[in-house]
Amino acid sequence: MGWGDLGAFGEPSKETPNLDQMASEGMLFLDFYTANPLCSPSRAALLTGRLPVRNGFYTTNAHARNAYTPQDIVGGIPDSELLLPELLKKAGYINKIIGKWHLGHRPQFHPLKHGFDEWFGSPNCHFGPFDNRALPNIPVYRDWEMIGRYYEDFKIDLKTGEANLTQIYLQEALDFISKQQASQQPFFLYWAIDATHAPVYASKQFLGTSQRGLYGDAVREIDDSIGKILKHLQKLGISENTFVFFTSDNGAALISAPKQGGSNGRFLCGKQTTFEGGMREPAIAWWPGHIPAGGVSHQLGNVMDLFTTSLSLAGLEPPSDRQIDGIDLLPAILQGKLIDRPIFYYRGNEMMAVRVGLYKAHYWTWSNSWEEYSKGIDFCPGQNVSGVTTHTQEEHTTLPLLFHLGRDPGEKYPLSFASDEYQRAMERISVTVQQHKATMVPGQPQLNVCDKAVMNWSPPGCEKLGKCLKPPKSDPKKCFWPH
Amino acid sequence: MGWGDLGAFGEPSKETPNLDQMASEGMLFLDFYTANPLCSPSRAALLTGRLPVRNGFYTTNAHARNAYTPQDIVGGIPDSELLLPELLKKAGYINKIIGKWHLGHRPQFHPLKHGFDEWFGSPNCHFGPFDNRALPNIPVYRDWEMIGRYYEDFKIDLKTGEANLTQIYLQEALDFISKQQASQQPFFLYWAIDATHAPVYASKQFLGTSQRGLYGDAVREIDDSIGKILKHLQKLGISENTFVFFTSDNGAALISAPKQGGSNGRFLCGKQTTFEGGMREPAIAWWPGHIPAGGVSHQLGNVMDLFTTSLSLAGLEPPSDRQIDGIDLLPAILQGKLIDRPIFYYRGNEMMAVRVGLYKAHYWTWSNSWEEYSKGIDFCPGQNVSGVTTHTQEEHTTLPLLFHLGRDPGEKYPLSFASDEYQRAMERISVTVQQHKATMVPGQPQLNVCDKAVMNWSPPGCEKLGKCLKPPKSDPKKCFWPH
Repeated sequence: MGWGDLGAFGEPSKETPNLDQMASEGMLFLDFYTANPLCSPSRAALLTGRLPVRNGFYTTNAHARNAYTPQDIVGGIPDSELLLPELLKKAGYINKIIGKWHLGHRPQFHPLKHGFDEWFGSPNCHFGPFDNRALPNIPVYRDWEMIGRYYEDFKIDLKTGEANLTQIYLQEALDFISKQQASQQPFFLYWAIDATHAPVYASKQFLGTSQRGLYGDAVREIDDSIGKILKHLQKLGISENTFVFFTSDNGAALISAPKQGGSNGRFLCGKQTTFEGGMREPAIAWWPGHIPAGGVSHQLGNVMDLFTTSLSLAGLEPPSDRQIDGIDLLPAILQGKLIDRPIFYYRGNEMMAVRVGLYKAHYWTWSNSWEEYSKGIDFCPGQNVSGVTTHTQEEHTTLPLLFHLGRDPGEKYPLSFASDEYQRAMERISVTVQQHKATMVPGQPQLNVCDKAVMNWSPPGCEKLGKCLKPPKSDPKKCFWPH
Repeated sequence: MGWGDLGAFGEPSKETPNLDQMASEGMLFLDFYTANPLCSPSRAALLTGRLPVRNGFYTTNAHARNAYTPQDIVGGIPDSELLLPELLKKAGYINKIIGKWHLGHRPQFHPLKHGFDEWFGSPNCHFGPFDNRALPNIPVYRDWEMIGRYYEDFKIDLKTGEANLTQIYLQEALDFISKQQASQQPFFLYWAIDATHAPVYASKQFLGTSQRGLYGDAVREIDDSIGKILKHLQKLGISENTFVFFTSDNGAALISAPKQGGSNGRFLCGKQTTFEGGMREPAIAWWPGHIPAGGVSHQLGNVMDLFTTSLSLAGLEPPSDRQIDGIDLLPAILQGKLIDRPIFYYRGNEMMAVRVGLYKAHYWTWSNSWEEYSKGIDFCPGQNVSGVTTHTQEEHTTLPLLFHLGRDPGEKYPLSFASDEYQRAMERISVTVQQHKATMVPGQPQLNVCDKAVMNWSPPGCEKLGKCLKPPKSDPKKCFWPH
């Protein structure tokens, strides 16, 4: 989803009454970011509280490349990383992930090996169908074992867009919450639905209900489901004891627009880019009786903060043996404080940009290559800001492009290099960047090697289902990351 | 102002708490339009309920040109037009205009000759200063006579942006409302502030208070003032007997962005264009006890509807001897009905586009000429939709460019001409356009002739103030309208 996809964030069809109500009962974050302009690295950052360049969810195959975990990826979340559920266990939490994991699908990366107690969902995106068995369809797991595959046992109709997966994920969530409430055990639920990721889908009852087409149908179903989850918490009497946060892992994928792609509001470009459209996210915190209703926060936030904030809520300290990039948002949420902190915009191994206060400095710009662009791959459709949305990698490290996101949220008017305002702002930003770079210890890159042999040919449990496939011979190669 | 300038419409700084509260107590219109992509024609349409091409507020000097009323304009609102205040008088209303009139500044066009009982404000935009007396500064009137001039008696500091005009207009409004309440007389107040029109200004107390710069300061002051007006109505006990509507006369002028220009949210281009950014407006209806709080309407509305709706509220019928384009919005506002009606997008004498339901068909496209564009005049900065934001006038009358504004509010992805969807939508739209064109009787164009001699050299009252200037010899010419 993108920043502009919810009514509360100005979507012109206003079709998210439940999320809008969540905002009116809770707190809207208008300056909230993901840690990376695409999925896997963001999710790794969310669960580790650390930038992808630290936790290994990046590539060094080429400069400043977006990388993720397709099913031929060899890497995944390293054992050395401490995930939020691992830590929450110490405080007696039961942890469940419902939906897309995306931190590696090989046995050592299984979510139940990294702190989760339960899992219902898939390790990768729901791409497919791979009907000719040249590639395996993505498995759906319950806990340790697969229980079927997309397109085979879990239908997604690519023609009509019909799939009832969100309904299944919703029921899983409601059941888990009921069970935890009954057993009086604290829980962490990571509800990682994926209906707005292409191929976009919705259940029959939502198909055709949106003014925005299939993408809007998917948003409506997610919105409706979140309303049901919140009402369930209230019905069970645990809403005042449950902290809920809604956000997304990257900006709307404009490459899929308008039929399968959402909206980043007035922000520049979309998923895959380090412009605001790629990384600024819708975000709502909800905790009746604690968070003042109808609050609006301009705190610069990041998905990594959910790691630190969740630990704080559980009375735990973040690990002290490593750099944690997330901050505890509770002072911002409960007391309306504004904590001064930067936002770093990475693409692979490169810090492309940084935001400090209302200023954003681009040290590198790149939309995508001319070669990809000429094939019709456009992350900024209808947008072209000269010298900003560049199709060659442009270095600005000696004289960064500077924008004031207050009067120019769309990153259209770089400040004059000669202005006093530029000088003053860059002095402050330079210090921040120097500190950041001086103390940066990159992790071992996990997204460099791909191998068809590691695909989901024979996931655990496949024998019982008669769904094991024979893998090809191992042939590890450098993954190709064009963007 | 543009559609995207209010928090309730998704402005990322959320700095309009009073207008947002007005929306939460009233009804937000998300599909509300002005009648023209610039000021004078929109205002003429608002007060007559008729398209500018009917009421004369257009030019035939060249094809599809935007025209308005600078101070050398010879024309103005014709006597044959019936203005809202003229009609409201029949129901005993006292009518006041505060702020910019813009329907002609020559004696015969004076607002008190067209139904208003009181006026405080100016006939033209607050351009200037014209210090060398080669041009007269724009006068400020109280009722029949001028009481000073901008920059001379009513200061606007172009360096700091400081001017206390909005405060003066606010006080005028509060006083008028108090007086009417005391005398128990029904009233119509047209509060036509202009602080967000370049040169943008704000009072000292608002300067520097916005994250958005001077433009945001101006928005904050307007927002604050509207909050005070609404509270005043409540304090006087007449809020449940007073219908209030907030809207704007054209989209944000992106040519003035980012320092003096606002935001059209995700819509394409801005003021001067017939893309959504030029004509879709923020709109809020407020009438406690009558309008359900927190309502959101997708009724296609237009500033011309305020004419018809106001008459309806006053128990009056619209004139039957002429075509009225406005509709009565009360069924939409009070009963949540959706009235099927088209929106026409005119540029001067040409119907450029039409919206029917969620479909918008462009019969002509033109941003502005290459010649103007090469001078840096850009109504679509950072936006370039191939074949859509054209710099030559492109005719599409045989095969209109069609957009679905639900899934593509930004007008970026024209539907395929060969698709069934295109065929079905255009069948319906063609009928609407045929009917419209077949019954169109254009008015006498008022914006064709300019003459320096008619400028505000010696407005009524200038003698008392010693502020009369000597006009040059009359030399009427065709006005030059480059866009």
